[in-house]
This record gives sequence, structure tokens and C-alpha cells, in this order.
Amino acid sequence: MVEKIITSVQNARIKELKKLFTRKGRKKAGQYILEGPHLVDMAIQAKADIDMIYYVPESSHAHIEKFKSMDDNLPFTQVTPEVAKSLSQTEQHQDIFAVATLPEAKTIDFDHLNDAVLILDQVQDPGNLGTIIRTADAFGYRDVILGKGTVDLFNDKVLRSMQGSHFAVNTYELDLDEAIPALKAHDYFIATTELNDQAHASNAFDLQSKGKWAIVLGNEGNGVSQLVQDMTDVSLYIPMVGSAESLNVAIAGAIVMYQFPPKS
Amino acid sequence: MVEKIITSVQNARIKELKKLFTRKGRKKAGQYILEGPHLVDMAIQAKADIDMIYYVPESSHAHIEKFKSMDDNLPFTQVTPEVAKSLSQTEQHQDIFAVATLPEAKTIDFDHLNDAVLILDQVQDPGNLGTIIRTADAFGYRDVILGKGTVDLFNDKVLRSMQGSHFAVNTYELDLDEAIPALKAHDYFIATTELNDQAHASNAFDLQSKGKWAIVLGNEGNGVSQLVQDMTDVSLYIPMVGSAESLNVAIAGAIVMYQFPPKS
Repeated sequence: MVEKIITSVQNARIKELKKLFTRKGRKKAGQYILEGPHLVDMAIQAKADIDMIYYVPESSHAHIEKFKSMDDNLPFTQVTPEVAKSLSQTEQHQDIFAVATLPEAKTIDFDHLNDAVLILDQVQDPGNLGTIIRTADAFGYRDVILGKGTVDLFNDKVLRSMQGSHFAVNTYELDLDEAIPALKAHDYFIATTELNDQAHASNAFDLQSKGKWAIVLGNEGNGVSQLVQDMTDVSLYIPMVGSAESLNVAIAGAIVMYQFPPKS
Repeated sequence: MVEKIITSVQNARIKELKKLFTRKGRKKAGQYILEGPHLVDMAIQAKADIDMIYYVPESSHAHIEKFKSMDDNLPFTQVTPEVAKSLSQTEQHQDIFAVATLPEAKTIDFDHLNDAVLILDQVQDPGNLGTIIRTADAFGYRDVILGKGTVDLFNDKVLRSMQGSHFAVNTYELDLDEAIPALKAHDYFIATTELNDQAHASNAFDLQSKGKWAIVLGNEGNGVSQLVQDMTDVSLYIPMVGSAESLNVAIAGAIVMYQFPPKS
């Protein structure tokens, strides 16, 4: 198969691809874009629905050979270094990109969720969201509910921080005022990382004894919304000794996921 | 005292201030810039050497009144919303900025360091560095050594992630090929978070029994440099269960600092 070559940054396809760096553009095209050989490699491994791989032949030969050996049906288009640079959202200027079909929204089945669930209530920093999903993957939290107001999972900064963990973790976009009552009806104990008068030290609380639980992480500036706090069974805080007033939300999430590993 | 008012984004002083967003500009001016009321508040509390506070009077009245009550010798200059917007590095467009004198480099005294030290070996992402310092502060790691190749502490993204913790944590910029031998000569046990054949699970290793220790966190892509690995007493890994190949460096650092709290 003869591969196409795109040599102009003004090429219509390249202009279309750039729209995938906005949420609106992704929704309209039903696609998202993965940047860099590592993410593309993970997408192939995860058997993601890859519509096209764009690459600079001079610099990407070894990666492309590997990709072809992993799946001989992958579609490729060559681009010049200038075109790659115009696409790249990173300072290092990656030379390989994949366009993949946005996965269909997963339907949540509260009867078959894991016993430990993570919930994000308006986490807005892309780096934080990506890091949280990557950490959830590493610590065995396989079901993550993204409340309304959380940054888009397919944002390029989220994708870079996530390092492909969205292929391994189930994510659900839901209204928390519906999802949390449903979890409670299914015997999930609801914990938040929220510092208030009634909060318990996380290292002195036996969340595991609750059987099934969900941990809610809140917004970077405002914490967990009042609506969610009103449905919470316990607030947990991570003991601190220094002058820092709080922890970054991804750090707090990592500590509590580490403290309370899923049982299965 | 009559406050000056700057109304033009072309004002020479504003042009000078913008240079403080580069490392070169900060070194030349001997100053750095703090953005937003929270960081300015922390700088005043920390008795940082503040050269000027710039603010938009219409939106910042309450903050400025508070600042004046904290220290009645602070210098102020008013700016228009347009000028503030031209200065701001954030999407929210802060209306308060402080210019502070860069602190002199701290001289390290290996005889009087804390028993638990954190070392950063070429951490390059500003958000990661800031989050690591903020977490070190929260978990009682008061001495942090920044190896050559680590991103500048006074980078605006680092400052925003750090949330003022640079006022509480001692940071030292050192060559690690000198600092680590000096630490070893002072009976520090050197641990890295580096996954290799000889690595021990961090939750099954008694670092505390070593008396004094330093934990080295490495570069986002390349980990801990070979030079440093050769001087390491133990490599520790954080057990993971999912498909994630590694943890973000700030997350890994947080977990090990949490696991190994300083004794004093």
C-alpha cells in the first residue's frame, strides 16, 4: 500500500486535525488525537480504534516498524517535520500522532462495579485529571466516575499525563447527584477527601471494613461541592505537619488510594 | 502615600516585569513575580522581601486592605485590568501581583540538615516540581536538594503549583555528584525511586531504621541518572497492580515521603 505524504501545514486534513485539540472539535469529528510514540504504542496494544497514524519517516522508522509488526492493518500517512511541528502541542515536538475514534460512553452497571470506586467532582486541571487516572490504574481503582464540570478526558494534556491509562480504567461521565445516590443504594460507603470539622484522619479510619466504598476527590480551588458533601458518609483528611494548607488533589487522591487498596 | 497608577500595557515597567517570566530575566533583575492574592498573602506572611505589589483597585480592594493590615510598609502600584491581563500567565487573569527579591542561594550545612532529605535529579516539569515541594512541606521534608537540570524554582508554573511552600522548605541548588557523596560521608542512607532488578518494594523496606536518609526522585522520562544510581544504597519501587508502567514522579515522591515520615 502506497502511503500518502502531507507536505503542507496548510493541508486541509492537517487543519481538520488541529480541531481535535478542542473538546468541540473532538465531539464533532468523533475522534481524538494521541501524540508521541508511547501513547500510540499503548493505543495499538489496547486495540483502540485507530483511524490514521501520521509520522515523520526520517525520525520514526523504528517505531513505525514496530507498530506494523503489532498490527499489519494500521493506516499510515507520512508528514514532513514542519507539518508535525505545526500539529504538536508539546515543546519537544513529537513526530508521531494517531487519530483514534472516540470510544462510546460506557453505560454504568452499579451491580457489577468494582468494590472500590473513584469519583471526581469538578477536577479542572488537565494534568491533575490525567495523573489521577494514571494513579488509579496503578493502584487498582478500575472504575472512575467523572462528574459534570470535570475536564475532558481526551484533552491533549490529560492524555499526556494519563500515559494510556484510559485504555485500562473504566470511566463514566455522570451527574453526581444521580450517581452517588445510586451507589449508596448499592451499599457503597461514600468518603471524600475534604478537610472540615467532622473529618477523620485517613490513616486512623478503617474504610476497608465498609465492604464497598467510593472516594470523592474535589475541585482544585473549591474542594468537594456542597451537594456531594451532603451525601457523604465520612470526610477524610491526610495528616500534614508542615505549613502547607492542603495537598494537590492528585497527591491526596494517590495517598488515599494507596491507603485503601481495592480488595479484589 | 499617593500610589502610582499604570494604565498602559506599553509602560516600560510592565515590559520589565514580563521579563521576570523567564529564568534569564529573573537572574538579571534579581527578582521574581508572584501571581494572585493567595501567593502574595503567603509572601507577606513569610516576610519575603517584596519590592512592589501591583493590583487592580476595583477588584482587589478586600485583599489590599488585608495586606496593609498585615504590613503597613508594603509598596503598592495600581494597574488597570488591561495591564493586569497582559501580565497574567493564567487563564483566570489574576488582578494582584507581587515582585519579590530572589532569595540568596542557601549554603548547605550537612551537619545540621534534617534527618530526612529529599533530592531531585533533573525533575523538569514545572507542575511536578511545585507539587513535590508542596508535598514535601506537608509531609515534613524540610530540606530539598535541587540537582542541576531541575526546572527553576521561581518559574511561574512552579510557583503556582508550590502554593507558597518555598517559603517553608529549605531548597539548595547543588551538583549531585558532590552533594550525594557529602551526604554519605555524613551517614545518610541514599534511596531512589527507581524500578530495576535490585529494587525493593517500598512498603517492605525499613528506611527508618537507617537513621538518616535521602530519597532521590528522578527525571520524568529517564528516571534517576546513572551517576546517581551508582551512589545509591537502595532502589525502592511502589507496588502497582494495574497496567500503568510507572507513577508520575510527584505521586511516587508523595507515596514514599508518606511512607517514611521524618522522625523529627
